[in-house]
Amino acid sequence: MQIAITGGGGFLASMLVRHLLDNGVAGKPVTRIITIDLVPCPVVDARVESIVADVGDRDVLARAISAQTKAIVHLAAVVSGQAEADFDLGMRVNIDATRVLLEHIRALGTRPRFVFTSSVAAFGGKLPDRVQDDTRALPQSSYGVQKVIGELLVSDYTRKGYVDGITLRVPTISVRPGAPNKAASSFASGIIREPLAGVEAVCPVSAEMRMWLQSPDRAIHNLAHALALDGSLLGNDRTVNLPGLSVSVGTMIDALRIAAGDAVTRLIRFEPDPAIERIVASWPNDFDAVRAKALGFVADEDYVSIVRAHMARIGNASPLTQNPPA
Amino acid sequence: MQIAITGGGGFLASMLVRHLLDNGVAGKPVTRIITIDLVPCPVVDARVESIVADVGDRDVLARAISAQTKAIVHLAAVVSGQAEADFDLGMRVNIDATRVLLEHIRALGTRPRFVFTSSVAAFGGKLPDRVQDDTRALPQSSYGVQKVIGELLVSDYTRKGYVDGITLRVPTISVRPGAPNKAASSFASGIIREPLAGVEAVCPVSAEMRMWLQSPDRAIHNLAHALALDGSLLGNDRTVNLPGLSVSVGTMIDALRIAAGDAVTRLIRFEPDPAIERIVASWPNDFDAVRAKALGFVADEDYVSIVRAHMARIGNASPLTQNPPA
Repeated sequence: MQIAITGGGGFLASMLVRHLLDNGVAGKPVTRIITIDLVPCPVVDARVESIVADVGDRDVLARAISAQTKAIVHLAAVVSGQAEADFDLGMRVNIDATRVLLEHIRALGTRPRFVFTSSVAAFGGKLPDRVQDDTRALPQSSYGVQKVIGELLVSDYTRKGYVDGITLRVPTISVRPGAPNKAASSFASGIIREPLAGVEAVCPVSAEMRMWLQSPDRAIHNLAHALALDGSLLGNDRTVNLPGLSVSVGTMIDALRIAAGDAVTRLIRFEPDPAIERIVASWPNDFDAVRAKALGFVADEDYVSIVRAHMARIGNASPLTQNPPA
Repeated sequence: MQIAITGGGGFLASMLVRHLLDNGVAGKPVTRIITIDLVPCPVVDARVESIVADVGDRDVLARAISAQTKAIVHLAAVVSGQAEADFDLGMRVNIDATRVLLEHIRALGTRPRFVFTSSVAAFGGKLPDRVQDDTRALPQSSYGVQKVIGELLVSDYTRKGYVDGITLRVPTISVRPGAPNKAASSFASGIIREPLAGVEAVCPVSAEMRMWLQSPDRAIHNLAHALALDGSLLGNDRTVNLPGLSVSVGTMIDALRIAAGDAVTRLIRFEPDPAIERIVASWPNDFDAVRAKALGFVADEDYVSIVRAHMARIGNASPLTQNPPA
């Protein structure tokens, strides 16, 4: 089975590549993975080809995705903080490149599985205490708008028979390994990751801020599950709100204290950033995710386990810790 | 006050042009209207300039919309049946041209009022008996998807301060003067308009099919209201479900019988078209429209009045009846 992954140089994609090589998809071995990203995929394996290029480049796509490609995972994106700061870049990557990619696949005529990742940023405005599967998307950031547009395109390309698409609205990933990024949610990993590395972390939101979180391990599990899922189970609604954990920043820090001790948490400094607070506060922080659970998607047990899994990961030699993203 | 209208050659735009010339906007006279469409605006008036061109043409937009343009009404669109039959054309006009237009206006830096029209086709899937203001958009046609993408763009361009936007989700217009078009809902005017003109009309859906309707007069009233509305009343939600009438095809025909007699209704022949039935049945047919009513948007009284208003219109000499669209 041949798979293409955009944004393949990112931490999540690298973990996904490793997972797919080790476990296959629905019992079928993965014989070849082609990644397309501005940075190379750090996983070294004969089955992996890493193309360093822009995902919106038609010639690159022609090389990377053919009739032999059984599935595409489209992770490449300009993240929330950057899409807000550079509107044109966000539109170009998050909308235009997604369209070029979908058009390339449509032209193949093979209707492969297409897994797209969206975000809690799809939601905003007045929200119920717990987001329901039929809660209206009302994004309050350019990133959120661009992601919802991607969801709509994936749905319509699926309805038209051009791809077999599924969009996962992924909770904020915590604890994301590697360096801080330009996502407004970057701190949700930084306040755990940096103190554990002996580095001071700045928390730009209050301890009361509640977020909807998922560990990298569960996110990978859910992406792999989306690759294997029977598309007909999704009917005419191809967008799935993933399960997650609703955790306040205060509880995250308590969990860090439980897992790693008091001294570590003293490396966290609160320094409010109104721009980040505004974006993060506009996101929902709790979901019922009934449909996703029925479809077999999963959440983490608790946040202490997430911190401990991160500590176990950084304790091990891995391609990620050997080659942290620049 | 200077206004630009895309799709200005259509029947709705022509009525809007006439209305704005006669009534102004919020007490201010309209001194100039520039229309951009593939067909000329049939309204003959020294204040109207009709540019016959593609709305996605940057050079045309540079000529038509300047810092003096206080408002833009973006009506140009590929309609539902045609967008379903020609996916690429729908994407090009309904998404790409909308983006070119928004980008042109953004570059002016004047943040004019931007009125965009969306549709009941924004909705689909499992719907409540009456659509609420927070009902999720789940379009089941390419037209619906493209319109919701337009809504999202208008919202984000507004949030970013590039335009002062408002999207009206307009009910199906009935009775639309002129010739049949490629909208899946074309019959909702045809079954009234054609029999009144002594011509047989084919109804492709059953008499039980219920629709969400608005007369051309009320639609024009609501478009003009959107031009005058204080944008701050809309907050962070720039998309408004318009009020309308929930009427079955059977009730529409009864109203025609009441207004015009039995002989006229005998010109209607039922001939089911599964493709049209599928699209129309996916649309909601009743709304609460609480927010729109509070904002001052209005519905018709009843369908008999709509038929009678159409009969009065075709009885009068008007630019529309003198120059029916080709």
